[in-house]
Amino acid sequence: MDEPSLVFSVLEYKRRIAALQDLMAADSIDALLLTTAADVFYVTGFLTRFWESPARPWFIVVPAVGDPVAVIPSIGTELMKKTWVRTIRTWDAPDPRDDGIGLLGSIVGDLTPPTGRVGLPMGLETQLRMPLADYAKLKTRLLPRAFVDATAIVQRVREVKSDAEVAKIRECCDLADRAFGQINAFAKAGAPLAEVFRSFQIELLAAGADWVSYVAGGAGQGGYGDVISPAGDQRLSKGDVLMLDTGAVRDGYFCDYNRNFSVGPPPSDTVRVHEALWDATETALMTIRPGWTAADVHAAMDQALRKHGVTPCAGRFGHGLGVTLTEWPSFTPLDTTELREGMVLTLEPSAVVSDSHLLVHEENLVLRSSGPELLSVRAPRILPELTV
Amino acid sequence: MDEPSLVFSVLEYKRRIAALQDLMAADSIDALLLTTAADVFYVTGFLTRFWESPARPWFIVVPAVGDPVAVIPSIGTELMKKTWVRTIRTWDAPDPRDDGIGLLGSIVGDLTPPTGRVGLPMGLETQLRMPLADYAKLKTRLLPRAFVDATAIVQRVREVKSDAEVAKIRECCDLADRAFGQINAFAKAGAPLAEVFRSFQIELLAAGADWVSYVAGGAGQGGYGDVISPAGDQRLSKGDVLMLDTGAVRDGYFCDYNRNFSVGPPPSDTVRVHEALWDATETALMTIRPGWTAADVHAAMDQALRKHGVTPCAGRFGHGLGVTLTEWPSFTPLDTTELREGMVLTLEPSAVVSDSHLLVHEENLVLRSSGPELLSVRAPRILPELTV
Repeated sequence: MDEPSLVFSVLEYKRRIAALQDLMAADSIDALLLTTAADVFYVTGFLTRFWESPARPWFIVVPAVGDPVAVIPSIGTELMKKTWVRTIRTWDAPDPRDDGIGLLGSIVGDLTPPTGRVGLPMGLETQLRMPLADYAKLKTRLLPRAFVDATAIVQRVREVKSDAEVAKIRECCDLADRAFGQINAFAKAGAPLAEVFRSFQIELLAAGADWVSYVAGGAGQGGYGDVISPAGDQRLSKGDVLMLDTGAVRDGYFCDYNRNFSVGPPPSDTVRVHEALWDATETALMTIRPGWTAADVHAAMDQALRKHGVTPCAGRFGHGLGVTLTEWPSFTPLDTTELREGMVLTLEPSAVVSDSHLLVHEENLVLRSSGPELLSVRAPRILPELTV
Repeated sequence: MDEPSLVFSVLEYKRRIAALQDLMAADSIDALLLTTAADVFYVTGFLTRFWESPARPWFIVVPAVGDPVAVIPSIGTELMKKTWVRTIRTWDAPDPRDDGIGLLGSIVGDLTPPTGRVGLPMGLETQLRMPLADYAKLKTRLLPRAFVDATAIVQRVREVKSDAEVAKIRECCDLADRAFGQINAFAKAGAPLAEVFRSFQIELLAAGADWVSYVAGGAGQGGYGDVISPAGDQRLSKGDVLMLDTGAVRDGYFCDYNRNFSVGPPPSDTVRVHEALWDATETALMTIRPGWTAADVHAAMDQALRKHGVTPCAGRFGHGLGVTLTEWPSFTPLDTTELREGMVLTLEPSAVVSDSHLLVHEENLVLRSSGPELLSVRAPRILPELTV
């Protein structure tokens, strides 16, 4: 293919746009406005770490018919030209007089009828990545057009992964597996947890991650207190369970799974809870099918844990995965999203070890018509011991 | 101090809250609503990479008087308890029925009079990190309270760094300097750029970064085409200029500076442009003072470049720096923000080498009453050659 394109072929992006436009048509939406790194990357292939700077907004407009239009700060012109997007309109951002709103307004205005509907994601798990005051200005400028919620449109398209996307996520899972394989080289009794986190990130990069957007974990006697705190100077000691969780990134796609390790022989309660968590994911891997709801998956794992006599934690037991570390749906009792073939999902049950400690176990999969296909290399059922 | 607190002492956070409340009082704002990782970290010390997951919103409410209130997903309870924040209200997120809006609404309602004003950042360089539909619900629920722009309140407080903050940023600069010092070990003619980026991140971690939120750069004959593209398989070759730019993070604070290296002897135009860029930053380092505007800084560097007979690029010539990779102000002709003692800033002039290539040079500083104090270790004026 001679056309320029980043990460995937032009056909992959055209398929995505066509799928969005089908759902837009069904909901009488005349233009879709996308503002986040994930949504912009999804429809264009525009991949950069420059989103880390909050200074500038970036806009993609998907019209009812035809190719998307990029309305972006001029600093992004060269990179956007490497994507398949051919209509690129720019301004010199940041501009305190008008940070792209005049330009965006006139483009959306041209692409939509005056009584048209502009869709953008407004629902659960979404954010608007532009100044709120500028959004208000845009709405006023485009009156009497209506701005309506397009969360479901974006979700129904993004949640089903193509084979090319699944291959990217599998690559991430594989490189994380190689990094976990080095665990005995960097996690030893006496090592400060902050050094263990640092070394794990180094191993992920050495294994081929483009960058490491997420590393978390915990360590404590028989379990850990929480799973989102940064690592401190606390040293690994015998009887600790060390958990490492990662979202390594390659070509803009994430893995998201964890592994648990015991520093020396683990207490029997910890062994039992780890096996219960493993069995809960095994139950899900054996049974879930397209057509189940997210709540059904939660119930299956919750029941499996209770059957083992362990107490499940509150909170979700997994979620979607792809161009962000976590995507919808959420495996909670409240999420009625229907599972579909091609969804990439994490199974992430957690259970109580003691008043103040818990264990979490996580795997990644793609849902096929016949059931889950693992993307992460399966964790061992028996909690492994580090060679301290 | 016995009170729990993360990153800084409780006094540092109390000072920040008092400064916000002074400006809130001057603007008759009864409560300030903060939603982004940076703002939440700034007032609480709540530091986690869990923000990478877009699944859940997080809220901090700063009342007109008294300590801030955290309104957060229950998964963050244990970590928030480690901060100085004593009032922590939680819900089980994500909840498709009500993702914290009822709870947040009732708390803001209790803290403000019915005709009160709720401030939140809405202006240039800000974003609202919560679903737009939930923001609309919150506004309706809290009627007749007004939601007003508090961008300037947050900016005037966050932009002046305490000595403790400056020390953190200097630590980041120092560790990046050690990583740049390893350049000859990982950047050699023939090396794929993607491997160079990967190795640089490994060196940043090895030098003490907690994580690496930003690495960018470029490589090309005599200069590079843009500075935000991800690295590809392109191999470094003689005559290339390699540029690496980083935002390494330690304790939640960033550095943001770059270095240029020539692969073999550089073309004379490249040498000349690099010296002009260095001289432009030298001019700024020698002259800027509190009371200058951001536009004045741009003009000083722009003139210095033109004096050398080189063509400045469009776009900003530096910006603020701190708990995000880039903060306001922007060194453009349009930004009239006044520089104040204690601001941490980057100087980042760029100039044209040829039709398709440019060079960028960047340093980090803290502005003292007597002028800039460098935080990055000064780049050499003469473009250094790699030992190919």
